[in-house]
Amino acid sequence: MSDGFAVVPIGVVSSALTDPAAAPKQGVEGGPAARIVLAPEWIDAAADISVGDRLVVLTWLHLADRRTVRVHPRDDPAAPLRGVFSTRSADRPNPVGLHEVTVLEVADGQLRVSDLEAVDGTPVIDLKPVLRGGA
Amino acid sequence: MSDGFAVVPIGVVSSALTDPAAAPKQGVEGGPAARIVLAPEWIDAAADISVGDRLVVLTWLHLADRRTVRVHPRDDPAAPLRGVFSTRSADRPNPVGLHEVTVLEVADGQLRVSDLEAVDGTPVIDLKPVLRGGA
Repeated sequence: MSDGFAVVPIGVVSSALTDPAAAPKQGVEGGPAARIVLAPEWIDAAADISVGDRLVVLTWLHLADRRTVRVHPRDDPAAPLRGVFSTRSADRPNPVGLHEVTVLEVADGQLRVSDLEAVDGTPVIDLKPVLRGGA
Repeated sequence: MSDGFAVVPIGVVSSALTDPAAAPKQGVEGGPAARIVLAPEWIDAAADISVGDRLVVLTWLHLADRRTVRVHPRDDPAAPLRGVFSTRSADRPNPVGLHEVTVLEVADGQLRVSDLEAVDGTPVIDLKPVLRGGA
């Protein structure tokens, strides 16, 4: 299990959100609209995405501490420590963020989407259609 | 956007499912129960996971073709080609699988879970609690 895999950004978040501490803790608590600027080589892979589509955006939370095993949930020091796999903390061995968004606009290799609580400059690693029924 | 990041497996799928072609196309269509064998260094990060928990399991679909830009959805040659970001195809630049499962058993650094449609040996890269309300 020691082998690793290289994740390659397929785009980057462009957002007014620049302070990680100000980011909402979960997408379901809201978040600003933001743009996903696609890497030129992956624009064609997004060509069938339309306004109104519901997507799961996968980000790489590049500011995370990947050595963290336990955290105080929601950064509340009074909350008992919990194993990171029972939390949505960004601090985890592979800091992949999941963000369920609605596509608001598609133009020029960019997608404007709702509710993307990731700071400006966060790498985007995948886009998937939301499935009815989960995951 | 040219920098990459190294994903490190935190565990591996142990399953009777060995043929990718036989795997259901989506978790919501069902899938066998399977075990997640955690890497020793991440067992503590899973210590608060209990039987009955709903988790999103993130896998690295290591057999995927990462150069794929468009696919015939559901491997149906009659289906029109679509950009991979509008599909759940495993063939995509960063082949992260999302699997919504229920924890059936916890023991000895292993989790037995429902509905994990990943072949035996698939690396697991993250576990997150399912949020009510999406993503």
